Amino acid sequence: MASSSCQCLFGHKSFFHGDSRFQSKTDLFSSMQPFKRNTLEFIMNRNSVTTYPQKSLCSQVAAQPDLGEFFWEKDPTPLLDMVDTPIQLKNLSNKELKQLASEIRSEISFIMSNAHKPYKASLSVAELTVAIHHVFHAPMDKILWDDGEQTYAHKILTGRRALMHTLKQKKGLSGFTSRAESDYDAFGAGHGCNSISAGLGMAVARDIQGKKNRVVAIISNLTTMAGQVYEAMSNAGYLDSNMIVILNDSRHSLHPKLDDGSKMAINPLSSSLTKLQSSRSFRRFREAAKGITKRIGKAVHELAAKVDEYTRGMIGPLGATLFEELGLYYIGPVDGHNIDDLVCVLNEVASLDSTGPVLVHVITEDEKGSESTEEGTPKSCSLVSDCRSIKSNLRTFNDVLVEALVEEAERDKSIVVVHAGAGLDPSLKFFQSRFPDRFFDVGMAEQHAITFSAGLSCGGMKPFCIIPSTFLQRGYDQVIEDVDLQKVPVRFAISSAGLVGSEGPTQSGIFDIAFMACLPNMIVMAPSDEDELVDMVATAVLVDDRPICFRYPRIALFGNGGPLRNGTPLEIGKGEILVEGKHVALLGYGVMVQNCIKAQSLLASLGIEVTVASARFCKPLDIELIRELCQDHQFLITVEEGTIGGFGAHVSQFLALDGLLDGRVMWRPVLLPDNYIEHASPREQLDIAGLTGHHIAATALSLLGRYREAFSLMQ
Amino acid sequence: MASSSCQCLFGHKSFFHGDSRFQSKTDLFSSMQPFKRNTLEFIMNRNSVTTYPQKSLCSQVAAQPDLGEFFWEKDPTPLLDMVDTPIQLKNLSNKELKQLASEIRSEISFIMSNAHKPYKASLSVAELTVAIHHVFHAPMDKILWDDGEQTYAHKILTGRRALMHTLKQKKGLSGFTSRAESDYDAFGAGHGCNSISAGLGMAVARDIQGKKNRVVAIISNLTTMAGQVYEAMSNAGYLDSNMIVILNDSRHSLHPKLDDGSKMAINPLSSSLTKLQSSRSFRRFREAAKGITKRIGKAVHELAAKVDEYTRGMIGPLGATLFEELGLYYIGPVDGHNIDDLVCVLNEVASLDSTGPVLVHVITEDEKGSESTEEGTPKSCSLVSDCRSIKSNLRTFNDVLVEALVEEAERDKSIVVVHAGAGLDPSLKFFQSRFPDRFFDVGMAEQHAITFSAGLSCGGMKPFCIIPSTFLQRGYDQVIEDVDLQKVPVRFAISSAGLVGSEGPTQSGIFDIAFMACLPNMIVMAPSDEDELVDMVATAVLVDDRPICFRYPRIALFGNGGPLRNGTPLEIGKGEILVEGKHVALLGYGVMVQNCIKAQSLLASLGIEVTVASARFCKPLDIELIRELCQDHQFLITVEEGTIGGFGAHVSQFLALDGLLDGRVMWRPVLLPDNYIEHASPREQLDIAGLTGHHIAATALSLLGRYREAFSLMQ
Repeated sequence: MASSSCQCLFGHKSFFHGDSRFQSKTDLFSSMQPFKRNTLEFIMNRNSVTTYPQKSLCSQVAAQPDLGEFFWEKDPTPLLDMVDTPIQLKNLSNKELKQLASEIRSEISFIMSNAHKPYKASLSVAELTVAIHHVFHAPMDKILWDDGEQTYAHKILTGRRALMHTLKQKKGLSGFTSRAESDYDAFGAGHGCNSISAGLGMAVARDIQGKKNRVVAIISNLTTMAGQVYEAMSNAGYLDSNMIVILNDSRHSLHPKLDDGSKMAINPLSSSLTKLQSSRSFRRFREAAKGITKRIGKAVHELAAKVDEYTRGMIGPLGATLFEELGLYYIGPVDGHNIDDLVCVLNEVASLDSTGPVLVHVITEDEKGSESTEEGTPKSCSLVSDCRSIKSNLRTFNDVLVEALVEEAERDKSIVVVHAGAGLDPSLKFFQSRFPDRFFDVGMAEQHAITFSAGLSCGGMKPFCIIPSTFLQRGYDQVIEDVDLQKVPVRFAISSAGLVGSEGPTQSGIFDIAFMACLPNMIVMAPSDEDELVDMVATAVLVDDRPICFRYPRIALFGNGGPLRNGTPLEIGKGEILVEGKHVALLGYGVMVQNCIKAQSLLASLGIEVTVASARFCKPLDIELIRELCQDHQFLITVEEGTIGGFGAHVSQFLALDGLLDGRVMWRPVLLPDNYIEHASPREQLDIAGLTGHHIAATALSLLGRYREAFSLMQ
Repeated sequence: MASSSCQCLFGHKSFFHGDSRFQSKTDLFSSMQPFKRNTLEFIMNRNSVTTYPQKSLCSQVAAQPDLGEFFWEKDPTPLLDMVDTPIQLKNLSNKELKQLASEIRSEISFIMSNAHKPYKASLSVAELTVAIHHVFHAPMDKILWDDGEQTYAHKILTGRRALMHTLKQKKGLSGFTSRAESDYDAFGAGHGCNSISAGLGMAVARDIQGKKNRVVAIISNLTTMAGQVYEAMSNAGYLDSNMIVILNDSRHSLHPKLDDGSKMAINPLSSSLTKLQSSRSFRRFREAAKGITKRIGKAVHELAAKVDEYTRGMIGPLGATLFEELGLYYIGPVDGHNIDDLVCVLNEVASLDSTGPVLVHVITEDEKGSESTEEGTPKSCSLVSDCRSIKSNLRTFNDVLVEALVEEAERDKSIVVVHAGAGLDPSLKFFQSRFPDRFFDVGMAEQHAITFSAGLSCGGMKPFCIIPSTFLQRGYDQVIEDVDLQKVPVRFAISSAGLVGSEGPTQSGIFDIAFMACLPNMIVMAPSDEDELVDMVATAVLVDDRPICFRYPRIALFGNGGPLRNGTPLEIGKGEILVEGKHVALLGYGVMVQNCIKAQSLLASLGIEVTVASARFCKPLDIELIRELCQDHQFLITVEEGTIGGFGAHVSQFLALDGLLDGRVMWRPVLLPDNYIEHASPREQLDIAGLTGHHIAATALSLLGRYREAFSLMQ
């Protein structure tokens, strides 16, 4: 597909799945723990294990490296050491499953506490994950997760234990589920809220083909804010295919003020203290339920009676019937840390035939089992690109944005902030605490956030709508129809733009320049540093006759993080020349200007004088600046951290229409390659993408015909 | 904002809102009807009318042209003739309001039956519209509609009666609400499902500013399939601002098999035969309800007691409590054709203070009052770009697509079709009837449709996901995260691509080339004619390792519509030279190839020999073809019906990286201008956009320095 990068000498390096990802086997096992077989209470028949096809990454390692009989500081995990595929959970008793869950929790805590990444969500689903893999037959049964951070126990149980220490690192495991990584990952989770839709598709495909496997979608209450979950449930209720939706209700509300008392969350799906009610449209489900009850009447052990209680709503408190309204047969709530109940309910659910979609409401506690972990670990934020890594004390662009917004909001009472996303970036809490009545966090409801902002604007306010680039994709239609087409002045602060390091491609914000700058009424900007970000906030406050947006990265600041200077509104459509040279002109967009300056300094040492300009605006373009650059230089290189169709496309179209490409100037675009950049450190990602100062300098050298120097620069 | 089109001599003409839209006043009134003042039962005090600010378009006309005392074939509309702004409804009795509704229905039928456009949805809300404008005070009170086709009565009552015959015509009224068109249109409706979000924003803005106006959002059961409605209701319930949501439940189900018997629709919001139930979280609403009941105890007329019945759910049948779960205080269902009930309920709702969001469930019948209209008028389809205009017997690209899909599906049992949109294009019913178990219409739930397709694909099927370009925007994130990033083979048939004529900018599909072709794994195609469309269907069937998409217009076929030939899979990334010339190369993408051929023929008559090539693929580009064109021609013109960032951007990036722009070839892009093209006929729109054969020829002439001929060509 890289047809348009045929000669992009230093543009990027190829990066494939299935590379030999580790240099030596010892790397793999450096954090592995030993095990004591004699602590096992039974001998699992390892010969009976069915081997499912595994992807290359995972098939390289066995679960039990033979590292000798020494102990590390962590607790022993004798049961877990016996498991490399979920099939080995089949013969375990409930007591052993409990122990396994406990060992997994200990394992996750041990691995992740060193990794300084959030992981509590995975601790909370240890029992649930164990119960699911005990009852269902993955990978034949399809298990779909919604939230990457909840899948660590799942990864450990499905052959990836030895690789867990590589999580989110270059060539290591993804922080999310990934079809490329494992056959046990039935679908990729990244943005949340997609598992019911995808699972329903798989269930329908199964029915068409006359297959018999189960489909289980585990949704999180954090992701149930999104409209797609509602669309999917509604359609599942209509299509009536057999599938199991497990709502993992960690009872976290996004809105603290509702946490008082009953811990009622804003979202009925996530609050959902539900009882089963009679309803004509669920007659068939009732009948199925009666079937369960009958069988339970003859049941051997008393636990099975729980199912009867759950299905008749005797355990559940009064409350929502939302799921039933949507057409799902509701069972719950079930204690998500009680293996006996979980196994019993899931077994019964798995044995049901022709009942249509079933929702099992499971209550879990994030705190469960995490006592031993360090304090101050932030709450789940795997779905939020903005989320800074734990312990980072560096000030970020987000911090500067919020400080600038607070400054402006002090002066202008009409400024309001709307935020969408799974979690709230800590920096935003500063604005929220300062102006609680002018701050709106709508959760994972980007579509609503954008139209809501448009409504606020029509009502006379000046909304700043803060959404990570990758999640802005989910509200694209609303940006077009409800903002741009109607020319409503909404200010989009597009956070986490560009590559996002360890969060990988699912959270990267690489398309926004292309998809925002093609909109006719939108002003599209990107600051080259934190000072320009402050200026752009001031600019956005002033522009009140059309929409405006600016993108900024999630990285730490370039400067010293000193006190914020006052923002000065920029002239619309005016860039700036930062360094004057003569041989080559570098026109950077956004923070790539910094890399242009690095390239300029590299080239200066080779005697090449380079002009560096910050475009500031992708739309409207500073055509005078571009004409000036073309006048004075033979070579023009545009640099952006975005895909094709963005800044470079706007520049080249202007150049062509202005006749400047007819022999006047040689233009080369430096931009992201035509593939997704896997998770790695931000520096590694930029290197893979070909966007470092070295790459830019090498491109300039090769334009000047100095190929040898270009080549040596890249060594 | 047109910075990048500074020298696009023949690219497009500017088109502004606020132009003098009519050539003479007589035009305006040519379809106006006379009136008989002596049929009025009372004299309205016209002097007391408050004049609200009106936009230029509407202030040009009065409601009562003095055309003399003759009668046309239509029924007299004496009451309606007295109304030019909603304030004049204030003093009307319920009996008069009833008559007014009846007159409006007759007026709409008269105007629209000549226009051959769907309008029944507006007939069904005649009483509701009259009641709303009687009770509320627009434009101070904000009235927001979800569905353009329901707003004709609203347009008639808000000063646009005399312009109704210009609906959807060039320089005429929009088929949707439009903030640019009237101050009475509080927000633009286009894609549906945005009115609660926007209304909530206005309500919150009002509260922050301490204002007192009402906000009323009217939603349609057709638009409640979309997740945004759910997101918005959930947030409205949480924020608890006073606003009124009116669910206009026309009881149309999108799924006929559920229409049997109880007319239960797939969507709980749209079926919703709801009763009011007790619920802790609605205690406050209960208290408010008691307040109403008390006041009603002292009420003067018996009608008011209805409110009590409604709020206590005594009239409503058993059923959904979905709205209450979402945090809205539910009242209903109310007979949408009973003015007495409507006025009573709305008056009470309007008088409530601090009750948070209220949902009034109104049942209407599309058939109401439409007996006199011609039979066979299709059901509402104003939200569906695919919808062909009534009575059109021309075969369309959609027809060909469906026929080709049926052919392929006969051979390949794994082919399934997923459709998203408000209504089903008639052509799709052919596939549905042939393969009922392999056809899935999910309604207005594009996000779900796409991920559901991905799930079907992962489950082993070959899904074709048919979505109009403009609605594909609503599932953009799912296209990226759930399809492209995971390289899941989903086949997107992007219908209604490009300009869509009378449906105007809200439904036009102009961004898809840019936003699809930037995705790394996607194959992006566009057929130049119906035969190539059939080939692309065959190609998409074969490609099973990555996603693929093709866009096609909603226009009628170019060919004679003869029997379908068998599709031949195309070689991926291969274009085709159609005409060989030497002076200029025209590289067209999609149906613009036809206009390139027209340009070629125009230029041939001027002695200029032009090469015409069909690119077929935007991604991967046919780089050999492009190199060949550059080898043989000094000038290369790319032509596409899309925005900046699309096909031309891909070509120019390749040209630059291949060194072909360094004096080898002069490239000019012909594409859509950087503004929205208002509704007009398709031919007029192309002319405004600068994409006709004449424009392309003129661009070539000007490149050749033959400016005089270029200029004369455009006269």
